[in-house]
Amino acid sequence: MGDTKVICTAMVEDRVPPFLKGSGKGWITAEYSMLPSSTHTRKIREASRGKLEGRTQEIKRLIGRALRSVIELDKLGERTVWIDCDVIQADGGTRTASITGAFVALVDALKSLHDDKLISTIPIRHFVSAISVGIVKDESVLDLCYIEDSNAKVDMNVIMTGEGEFVEIQGTGEEAPFSRNDLNELLDLAEKGNKELIEKQKQALGEISNFIIKGE
Amino acid sequence: MGDTKVICTAMVEDRVPPFLKGSGKGWITAEYSMLPSSTHTRKIREASRGKLEGRTQEIKRLIGRALRSVIELDKLGERTVWIDCDVIQADGGTRTASITGAFVALVDALKSLHDDKLISTIPIRHFVSAISVGIVKDESVLDLCYIEDSNAKVDMNVIMTGEGEFVEIQGTGEEAPFSRNDLNELLDLAEKGNKELIEKQKQALGEISNFIIKGE
Amino acid sequence: MGDTKVICTAMVEDRVPPFLKGSGKGWITAEYSMLPSSTHTRKIREASRGKLEGRTQEIKRLIGRALRSVIELDKLGERTVWIDCDVIQADGGTRTASITGAFVALVDALKSLHDDKLISTIPIRHFVSAISVGIVKDESVLDLCYIEDSNAKVDMNVIMTGEGEFVEIQGTGEEAPFSRNDLNELLDLAEKGNKELIEKQKQALGEISNFIIKGE
Amino acid sequence: MGDTKVICTAMVEDRVPPFLKGSGKGWITAEYSMLPSSTHTRKIREASRGKLEGRTQEIKRLIGRALRSVIELDKLGERTVWIDCDVIQADGGTRTASITGAFVALVDALKSLHDDKLISTIPIRHFVSAISVGIVKDESVLDLCYIEDSNAKVDMNVIMTGEGEFVEIQGTGEEAPFSRNDLNELLDLAEKGNKELIEKQKQALGEISNFIIKGE
Amino acid sequence: MGDTKVICTAMVEDRVPPFLKGSGKGWITAEYSMLPSSTHTRKIREASRGKLEGRTQEIKRLIGRALRSVIELDKLGERTVWIDCDVIQADGGTRTASITGAFVALVDALKSLHDDKLISTIPIRHFVSAISVGIVKDESVLDLCYIEDSNAKVDMNVIMTGEGEFVEIQGTGEEAPFSRNDLNELLDLAEKGNKELIEKQKQALGEISNFIIKGE
Amino acid sequence: MGDTKVICTAMVEDRVPPFLKGSGKGWITAEYSMLPSSTHTRKIREASRGKLEGRTQEIKRLIGRALRSVIELDKLGERTVWIDCDVIQADGGTRTASITGAFVALVDALKSLHDDKLISTIPIRHFVSAISVGIVKDESVLDLCYIEDSNAKVDMNVIMTGEGEFVEIQGTGEEAPFSRNDLNELLDLAEKGNKELIEKQKQALGEISNFIIKGE
Repeated sequence: MGDTKVICTAMVEDRVPPFLKGSGKGWITAEYSMLPSSTHTRKIREASRGKLEGRTQEIKRLIGRALRSVIELDKLGERTVWIDCDVIQADGGTRTASITGAFVALVDALKSLHDDKLISTIPIRHFVSAISVGIVKDESVLDLCYIEDSNAKVDMNVIMTGEGEFVEIQGTGEEAPFSRNDLNELLDLAEKGNKELIEKQKQALGEISNFIIKGE
Repeated sequence: MGDTKVICTAMVEDRVPPFLKGSGKGWITAEYSMLPSSTHTRKIREASRGKLEGRTQEIKRLIGRALRSVIELDKLGERTVWIDCDVIQADGGTRTASITGAFVALVDALKSLHDDKLISTIPIRHFVSAISVGIVKDESVLDLCYIEDSNAKVDMNVIMTGEGEFVEIQGTGEEAPFSRNDLNELLDLAEKGNKELIEKQKQALGEISNFIIKGE
Repeated sequence: MGDTKVICTAMVEDRVPPFLKGSGKGWITAEYSMLPSSTHTRKIREASRGKLEGRTQEIKRLIGRALRSVIELDKLGERTVWIDCDVIQADGGTRTASITGAFVALVDALKSLHDDKLISTIPIRHFVSAISVGIVKDESVLDLCYIEDSNAKVDMNVIMTGEGEFVEIQGTGEEAPFSRNDLNELLDLAEKGNKELIEKQKQALGEISNFIIKGE
Repeated sequence: MGDTKVICTAMVEDRVPPFLKGSGKGWITAEYSMLPSSTHTRKIREASRGKLEGRTQEIKRLIGRALRSVIELDKLGERTVWIDCDVIQADGGTRTASITGAFVALVDALKSLHDDKLISTIPIRHFVSAISVGIVKDESVLDLCYIEDSNAKVDMNVIMTGEGEFVEIQGTGEEAPFSRNDLNELLDLAEKGNKELIEKQKQALGEISNFIIKGE
Repeated sequence: MGDTKVICTAMVEDRVPPFLKGSGKGWITAEYSMLPSSTHTRKIREASRGKLEGRTQEIKRLIGRALRSVIELDKLGERTVWIDCDVIQADGGTRTASITGAFVALVDALKSLHDDKLISTIPIRHFVSAISVGIVKDESVLDLCYIEDSNAKVDMNVIMTGEGEFVEIQGTGEEAPFSRNDLNELLDLAEKGNKELIEKQKQALGEISNFIIKGE
Repeated sequence: MGDTKVICTAMVEDRVPPFLKGSGKGWITAEYSMLPSSTHTRKIREASRGKLEGRTQEIKRLIGRALRSVIELDKLGERTVWIDCDVIQADGGTRTASITGAFVALVDALKSLHDDKLISTIPIRHFVSAISVGIVKDESVLDLCYIEDSNAKVDMNVIMTGEGEFVEIQGTGEEAPFSRNDLNELLDLAEKGNKELIEKQKQALGEISNFIIKGE
């Protein structure tokens, strides 16, 4: 996505966290990381610090939540899908790029399970993608790059389904509060952006995409 | 707030984090914790685990961000205000109660600095409070208790200023996506709730409250 | 206790640590913490440091040991009672206040188990309370406040039963060694103090108190 | 000491902890560890666990406190003496053996500083040693071995000066409370034991010992 | 290198570790990590475990040592070059591929410093590359892939300069000891492999390569 | 070994790591540590740092690998032998001294198992010992002491069997690369050194030694 590059992968493990054992339901969990060289000044490796930063924890929880909200976990069986989003190059919007890319990896992994006859349907209820919007120098901007993001008065991440409904909205008035009108303007932009992203996801997934839409 | 009880305190330290040294600006940072006995089944102490959970990190960042957005940090001088929110009893909405209560503690601490002639004004730009809203059994609900929160399809925390603008919105379709209409209905409710909370804050602060409003 | 305020709670969990599995015996374990705002200068949260201080470990072990010594663990069944002592405001003697208060919480929790017919007796062998004594400016002092504690030459914590026997004695000549006479004088004072505290515990427990004394 | 063997060393570092910088005073700090093979079943290395156990923290604090109480820290200059007590073989009484041995190492290190003209006196106010006493099968026992310690109803560690005064008393009724008479009997025994240990320390130190006694 | 893919980067920081402060010398340090999806079964992220594995520590030290041995650290000035090797896909030989690739990144970074007139020469004394060799089913093999590596009786990593001398040799008889003859045969192979790798490095570096060879 | 003194012990535990459960095979694992007072300036305790240094991890892995390579793990049964090497005094070559000493402790422990009829043979295939060699001031040196090691241009650790074959070679050109001729000269020296060490091991083991050689 522009100069932001993220490797998104999905790997399936044949067990679930303790709280789901015996439930017949599956789980999706995500991890997120930035390579030290993904930013202008080198980012210290969290493995070297010995702990995840608060920001990383927030993002990994956000990605997991977004993907879980569009899947039927009870049709996945007692399996965990591990989503890994590793940022190779960062120019703003890494968390939204991660969600959009991770969805493609997730469907791809589920397709493999289906091909191997391990699940009878691809249990996706909706497409899901995410985009950032914000107010920079009094103008509403879609998909902020790093420079814009650093100067934004309001910064919002919007996660939406293919049907145009909201999965998650996180908006912050970093330097000043924002009005209901500002909000509406930003959501209109986000809707437009997500519509385009879902088209891109469909192109990337090719035939598998139809497969989902038919509800199979 | 109902059966949710949080001890909110503000303490001032005469130094700032490294990135602000020499800037003349101050800082506000927050910490949040739940006592082990605040929940029905005992919550393991994070100090014993040796690390903060992702949820705790999210909340402490949220509280700090909310308070920083309504204060003029450059008029605080090179001081850090430490906000501590310790949940004694939890029945839903602990993060929003923390923000609402912490604002009162913050103003109180700034008043002391002012009384001691350490700052010339109380550098608050806006009152700020927070409330949760959600959709439970297809109905929009204000200030969800624990049971409601556990059954909510949509869960949203809304932080607003005394002027009715947004400081932060975080809304999640936990089980199903939500529409633009749902969103608008929830925001209306949140506006109503925050208006009441700011009244309560004014009562709690008494005279100091006028002091701020006069812009002094 | 004076300006020292501690929230003491007891929660029962239906399992025991590994070394007691299958033994039929129960366990009592305690945790202790000071809220950051309980002291004059803010105390850094141990959860943020990522580890418990040595002092905290000493105190939590002390509380657990004191309570275990007056209970019949084999009549508790394979249950763990978790004692949490959280200091809200500290003015000396937080560890002794924790023990005295935790005993009341423990009995209260055991009464609930008894009411629910989960245990047939309240398996308490003795009341237990604790008090600090010390030598300040060459005088023996009972229940030292923070200022006294900081200036004490000798500092001693004495844990005693309702029958006036010792459960634990910890005495330190912080700045100078002390004589056998000094020791005897301090123990006399401690005996007096603990007698009063046990009266207070009985008042707090009300009827349950008689229940124990009858050996039921 | 019997089958308990501890390597005690003292090393001098030319700086003090932050709270003493510029005070002109020195510091003594101690560390304690048991080799994995010092016990019958292998003890897991704390370095592998990644943290010190509560018991280790208690003991290291106890050793440091005992030694600091008999030295004039202001005559040490801004230096830290690091005491290391490493248990090679454990048969009860490792903490008391550590204190008794560490005192000899400490004096030895101070003698070197004095020989190098870095300090003008050996700033020791008292000899200090430690011994355990306890009640095993209703009898008072001096210097408990592992088997005795495991069966003791009351267990006490007594740290005393060469003049027979107390530096620290820690006594616990592990299984049953103990009376004032029990206490007195145990303290008599401890006094006898410590007297012998201080004789041994004097023998080990040889001439340096006289050097201290002369007070210069 | 075959199916092994590693992103190698070099970033320059304008300061050195404490032990080099004021020495006028620079430093090179390396970090190494495998993405969770680089292996067949997902590798748990070290940042999530909270610590680096022993294997990772060994490899990061090896890479740093290899690069430092071919550079004149005193001509680098008080700068640290951070080398990051992140394995995207692993099929054996990730540590040797990291060294070979990291050398190219290092030269590239030094060239930038030189272009910016921050250093007067590119202070490289030798080219350096690394390759694995081993004995698989009684035959000497060059550049083992994962399957070969898993079945190797002897496994050796050989780091060499452009002049054919050794920078480091690490050879292990994983299942059986090996003879002097075996060793010689493996070193011959490694020499051949490293010669080819250095050719590849020269191609990758293009003109910069000549620049070094001229000793400038 | 000269002024290097290491306590090497072997303790047997009746279980194996998870990856060997049910395999019928045993395991050997090693830990290594330096006492704080083993070096001239005090070495900070890794238990206090809360993590093992990279160097320690490398050495513990090396010791374990060396011992496992000469034992028939399938004849050990599902047992783990824990090797502990604790350096009491360090003057170079602590890792090689650890291996040489640990082998003796290992055989001793296996002899006990055999005496107790828990294993039917002492499953040792080869004697194993280790020695350091290096190039100091252009001369090849055997068994480097600390001063030599600090000045070595090339530093190599060579682990060999009683039959004179290699178990592991680790050679590093710390300051300059080394030639094939250098390598050969160093290996000749190492062979001579290891031969002597294995004689010492046989003396230390006495009769048990013959027992192994007879293949029993």
